[in-house]
Amino acid sequence: MDQVWSNYKEALDEVEEQIKKGLDSEVTLINKVAYHILSSGGKRIRPLLLIISAQLCQSVDKRHIHLAGMVEFIHTATLLHDDVLDNAEVRRGIPAARLLWGNQASILVGDYLYTLAVCQAVKMENFEINYLLSTTCRRMSEGETLQLVHSRDLDLTEATYLQIIEYKTAALLSAACKLGGIIGNESDEKKEALSRYGRNLGIAFQVADDTLDYVADRARLGKSPGKDIKEGKVTLPLLHLLQHCSSKDKRELKKVIKKAALLKRDLSFVTGLMEQYGSIAYARKKAQDYANRAKSDLSIFSDSLHRQALCTVADYVVRRDH
Amino acid sequence: MDQVWSNYKEALDEVEEQIKKGLDSEVTLINKVAYHILSSGGKRIRPLLLIISAQLCQSVDKRHIHLAGMVEFIHTATLLHDDVLDNAEVRRGIPAARLLWGNQASILVGDYLYTLAVCQAVKMENFEINYLLSTTCRRMSEGETLQLVHSRDLDLTEATYLQIIEYKTAALLSAACKLGGIIGNESDEKKEALSRYGRNLGIAFQVADDTLDYVADRARLGKSPGKDIKEGKVTLPLLHLLQHCSSKDKRELKKVIKKAALLKRDLSFVTGLMEQYGSIAYARKKAQDYANRAKSDLSIFSDSLHRQALCTVADYVVRRDH
Repeated sequence: MDQVWSNYKEALDEVEEQIKKGLDSEVTLINKVAYHILSSGGKRIRPLLLIISAQLCQSVDKRHIHLAGMVEFIHTATLLHDDVLDNAEVRRGIPAARLLWGNQASILVGDYLYTLAVCQAVKMENFEINYLLSTTCRRMSEGETLQLVHSRDLDLTEATYLQIIEYKTAALLSAACKLGGIIGNESDEKKEALSRYGRNLGIAFQVADDTLDYVADRARLGKSPGKDIKEGKVTLPLLHLLQHCSSKDKRELKKVIKKAALLKRDLSFVTGLMEQYGSIAYARKKAQDYANRAKSDLSIFSDSLHRQALCTVADYVVRRDH
Repeated sequence: MDQVWSNYKEALDEVEEQIKKGLDSEVTLINKVAYHILSSGGKRIRPLLLIISAQLCQSVDKRHIHLAGMVEFIHTATLLHDDVLDNAEVRRGIPAARLLWGNQASILVGDYLYTLAVCQAVKMENFEINYLLSTTCRRMSEGETLQLVHSRDLDLTEATYLQIIEYKTAALLSAACKLGGIIGNESDEKKEALSRYGRNLGIAFQVADDTLDYVADRARLGKSPGKDIKEGKVTLPLLHLLQHCSSKDKRELKKVIKKAALLKRDLSFVTGLMEQYGSIAYARKKAQDYANRAKSDLSIFSDSLHRQALCTVADYVVRRDH
């Protein structure tokens, strides 16, 4: 993966410039808050995917740089709102914007970044791009709301879980990849293949992330483990456990999930059961399955360094915990 | 004004249908929350302005109905977020959405309504419309942030106050009016005249609203009076008072403004001073001045029932308290 990052470094650096240049509101607090979170060490996986996809599709102009910046603005807007929704204190190992500037600023700067991205997209005067970005934003807010609806829902099905993560996470990754195809003037077939690749990769990414929340340590995560269960988010490992554990274990689990403050031993109890019932292994395998599907989606493209890079990214997103 | 409402009732009814039809998310909570606030008796001043402007410019198709729905969605998105920002409990005399479904749902459904409006706008495939709506949304979030920056700012100038309300309120009213000109294929000159009319009317509207907050009773407002000072918003009557009262009064005022919980007698003290120093009268006159400017902006149009309607609206927005 290091090789992939370095191969696309030039374009990624241009995206960084683009992002900095974009933060030019006359209201300086907006630039400050946005810059805080945008410079906090996010991996820029969405810009990377857009750049690789654009190059795979032989896009020749600089639109992929602009679009990559917009996609990162949209992603950042959701992070600002997510942190308010989750009462998060830490993001990527540093204080969340809401701790430094408050919930109000975080909500408003989130709103600003959404609208900034839309403004930049509109200026491109390309209907297909605008349609894709706007429907993606709508999907994302539907996914977040669906997640809220199913907060602490112990009967959540895997199908609904997958729908939630497809909407809230995979939709934007899918759009990033498809945008590469759009500006490369690819056939509908290839654009759809990129869209599917991004969707499957996005699901793999989120399942891996949800699993990591139970197994990684604080240093690796840049946040406390067990965050999801504390926030009432029922994710794949917990969902699997609830469906497979004994009724006695389930009763205990329910108590833990309903607790307002979770103790370290509560979390150990949950992760212990997950190991026992194979829930972690199940979730890891699911993530890898989706990563494999993502790689298969690329078969329509002839072999190239760019296609290989997308395959490397697919494996990378599920292996961050190894 | 009753005559105006009744003259455009048919189109306004179509907008209501449009709004209901638009709330079709597969996530039913979204439709429920959005419908709660959208059906809570908002006056639909923005749709009305758009409809009149479109008819003034002899727009012939149904785009004004669609656009009016979008503008109301954008307005509603800001209300949902505003209520979270302000910890509001009541909106238009009924419980705020955040009291019924929580802050999280209010933030997310606000996000959804923004993106829904953008989606609908994109489908119109009209660059000018999309550019106007997206830059307007950006302006609005800048205005809200600027207001936050100047929260409890006792040195706020009238110029900055006017900038805040121009961005947070007048921008969308201005856009609503200009949209009528755009779909009526009017000259740039006339579109700009409508834009200016909407901006001046919007400023008049907000100044009147800010004044009303000090003088109207709960029944008329649909909310408690003195809301702005409690929330730390320095608006025109207070700003005028701070600039004109004695230093002894100013010291007392500062104490009141810094209080976390405002008592009824604190509010009476403030409004008493405002009467004494002519701050209410000053703000009322300012609102009327902007309403007059709005009316003058229409001189480029020949006299018609529609132009007269816009003049009536301008007078109406500043006279809601009489």
